[in-house]
Amino acid sequence: MNPPFDTESLVAHARGLDAADPLRSFRDAFVVDDPELIYLDGNSLGRLPIRTDERVRQVVSEEWGTRLVNGWGDGWIDLPRRLGGKIAGLIGALPEEVIVCDSTSVNLYKLAMAALDGRPGRSKVLTDASNFPSDVYILAGCAAQTGRELIVVEPDELASSLDRDTALVSASHVAFKSGAIADMVSVTDAAHTVGALTLWDLSHSVGALPINLNAASVDLAIGCTYKYLNGGPGSPAFLFVRKELQDELVSPIRGWFGQADAFAFGLEYTPAPGLDRFLAGTPPILSMAAIEAGVDLVIEVGIDRLRAKSVAQTEFLVRLWQALLEPLQVSLNSPVDPGRRGSHVSIGHPNAFQIDQALIHEKNVIPDFRCPDSIRFGVTPLYTTFEQLAKAILRTRSVIEDGSYRRYSPEPSRVT
Amino acid sequence: MNPPFDTESLVAHARGLDAADPLRSFRDAFVVDDPELIYLDGNSLGRLPIRTDERVRQVVSEEWGTRLVNGWGDGWIDLPRRLGGKIAGLIGALPEEVIVCDSTSVNLYKLAMAALDGRPGRSKVLTDASNFPSDVYILAGCAAQTGRELIVVEPDELASSLDRDTALVSASHVAFKSGAIADMVSVTDAAHTVGALTLWDLSHSVGALPINLNAASVDLAIGCTYKYLNGGPGSPAFLFVRKELQDELVSPIRGWFGQADAFAFGLEYTPAPGLDRFLAGTPPILSMAAIEAGVDLVIEVGIDRLRAKSVAQTEFLVRLWQALLEPLQVSLNSPVDPGRRGSHVSIGHPNAFQIDQALIHEKNVIPDFRCPDSIRFGVTPLYTTFEQLAKAILRTRSVIEDGSYRRYSPEPSRVT
Repeated sequence: MNPPFDTESLVAHARGLDAADPLRSFRDAFVVDDPELIYLDGNSLGRLPIRTDERVRQVVSEEWGTRLVNGWGDGWIDLPRRLGGKIAGLIGALPEEVIVCDSTSVNLYKLAMAALDGRPGRSKVLTDASNFPSDVYILAGCAAQTGRELIVVEPDELASSLDRDTALVSASHVAFKSGAIADMVSVTDAAHTVGALTLWDLSHSVGALPINLNAASVDLAIGCTYKYLNGGPGSPAFLFVRKELQDELVSPIRGWFGQADAFAFGLEYTPAPGLDRFLAGTPPILSMAAIEAGVDLVIEVGIDRLRAKSVAQTEFLVRLWQALLEPLQVSLNSPVDPGRRGSHVSIGHPNAFQIDQALIHEKNVIPDFRCPDSIRFGVTPLYTTFEQLAKAILRTRSVIEDGSYRRYSPEPSRVT
Repeated sequence: MNPPFDTESLVAHARGLDAADPLRSFRDAFVVDDPELIYLDGNSLGRLPIRTDERVRQVVSEEWGTRLVNGWGDGWIDLPRRLGGKIAGLIGALPEEVIVCDSTSVNLYKLAMAALDGRPGRSKVLTDASNFPSDVYILAGCAAQTGRELIVVEPDELASSLDRDTALVSASHVAFKSGAIADMVSVTDAAHTVGALTLWDLSHSVGALPINLNAASVDLAIGCTYKYLNGGPGSPAFLFVRKELQDELVSPIRGWFGQADAFAFGLEYTPAPGLDRFLAGTPPILSMAAIEAGVDLVIEVGIDRLRAKSVAQTEFLVRLWQALLEPLQVSLNSPVDPGRRGSHVSIGHPNAFQIDQALIHEKNVIPDFRCPDSIRFGVTPLYTTFEQLAKAILRTRSVIEDGSYRRYSPEPSRVT
């Protein structure tokens, strides 16, 4: 059923949806400084959980400040595994298949190089053009370094482009720009049929929709913790290696945290058994510790309830787009089918950057702009309300209709 | 002049040295929870500066909590360069030659791989047996990955082992176990004579003694910020690339933060001009922000004054060792010449691990143990007092003399 589209009725209708929302109380778990701010960029940087604020104070003042180097023995050393074990439950993996360490980029590099080392004699690495550009750069670098070729195809051509020369196929589970969900099961099956390994980037799906890596027989995965997991700016990433592959693959970066016995200080490297071999250097503890409370919140709510609200909210956005923005020549750059859509909705307009700037500077709405012509409205069901979505679309219509966006330079600035 | 060695006179003498110490007021800049604790492990994890505690609260509550994604534009994005510029002043480098990012291990890997890529046709990588084992593991991995051989020689054989087949020589500036200072100038000169590149690990020298990378014409360097710079557990590391080499070398990990225009989101990787190309993924901001106040303190005190106090304190330790511990068959595992010694003193005993445990659990002294038989007493002149050093040696004598260390298992546990 379509919502009413005149401003007053629409906002009232949205408030009704919020009142009926079973997850509405979780908004109180986050620091909300300006209740009027419409923050639709949780898919870039999630909000600060109140418990994280407390936890970081504790790690700094109590643990570092008073326990000093003993903090390592008191729990810091186990953070990669403890956090990984919790994230494992969100992505259909075993606890011992996930660790948290380094950045998404470094983890992608480690796993891609390990995979290529594990598939000698195959000349191709495969990805698609909707993958996050940083992933494409890193994969191209790995291919070049090992004398291979990176093939970039369209997203729907991944499965059909695989052959016996393919060592590795790597793609984003949810595309950063359109929000389209890739067919993880079919691509992974097709890869295994030709003996290739698969490496999925879960940055835009973890904490937003159910993922079952083991059911799909995925080999390798990485993902970010600062989007839907609310881990904080640049918080360390996770990596997944299927259990059967763990003793077969070796990290290219042979740091002491991945050594079988780091504190024996011998000069010969022996990779640790299991997943620990993919750790490299000393993990940044303050940023690591900040991840846990956000992950706990997602676990507490439950990924199925989050996904149900996310679908309802992106459906709501799509209907509002259709009624209020499509008539203004705004395109929908996300899939119409909610089953194929992650937790953000992208709209397109030739002046998208200027519209984005007008929303930020005049309308107290923070979406984000993605080159060349997309505006992403990120839905983070833990704290996004229907009222905010309704107002964001109404305000977008208003800055387009009255042309106020033209005051802004069409030159994009640097924002993550 | 030797201090008096009976307990009462020695402690009184040490208190006199503390009263005359021009740096004594800097101890107040740190959180000191237990004033009786003798913390001699600042070379493993430096203490918490009071200003850092405040700064982290600000980054979490105010910046992440209220500025949200705008934090990137407000200063987070510049942290790698801003922190690097400050550290540059401590190591004799230009501000644009140093950035802070990733871990020491990952930075070593990036620079070693870049160096090897820049010296094709040379079959050897050279290091020495006193280098930090993690560095040796990583260098061995880089050598293996590029079809080269890693040669491990004794520290005094580095310069003479270089030849025209050497692509890269990498060593620790101050050895983690003995505290010996390497002859950076001679080794670098010898390397350049045969056309090899040099990569120094400054983890145990930065913030402890004057370093002049440019005067020594060093090519590449890395270092840790959580020891003498007091940056916090696992705080991100720095890397240095000599200006003339920056546009010639390329990072093996081609992440978006090293891309010329990360936010254009094109699919072709173009390395950023200058040092930025050695950035990889999104930096962990909480751990990054925690570094600055500690670095500022070192700058404020001045590295020459720090070094002068450090030399006075390690000399004091050596004289106490000679009078009180050598008669108990405790060896000195650090250089006797203060000009060849960094800021820690290692002593040796067959039961070193047990003695270390007795000091920690019974004597409120935290040194650290390094396999197989060393105890390190780390001197951090910003907050270490002569009185603490005197008491630490007296207590070490006591646990050896009364045999109380024998209560502890000889089995080392995992501590960083």
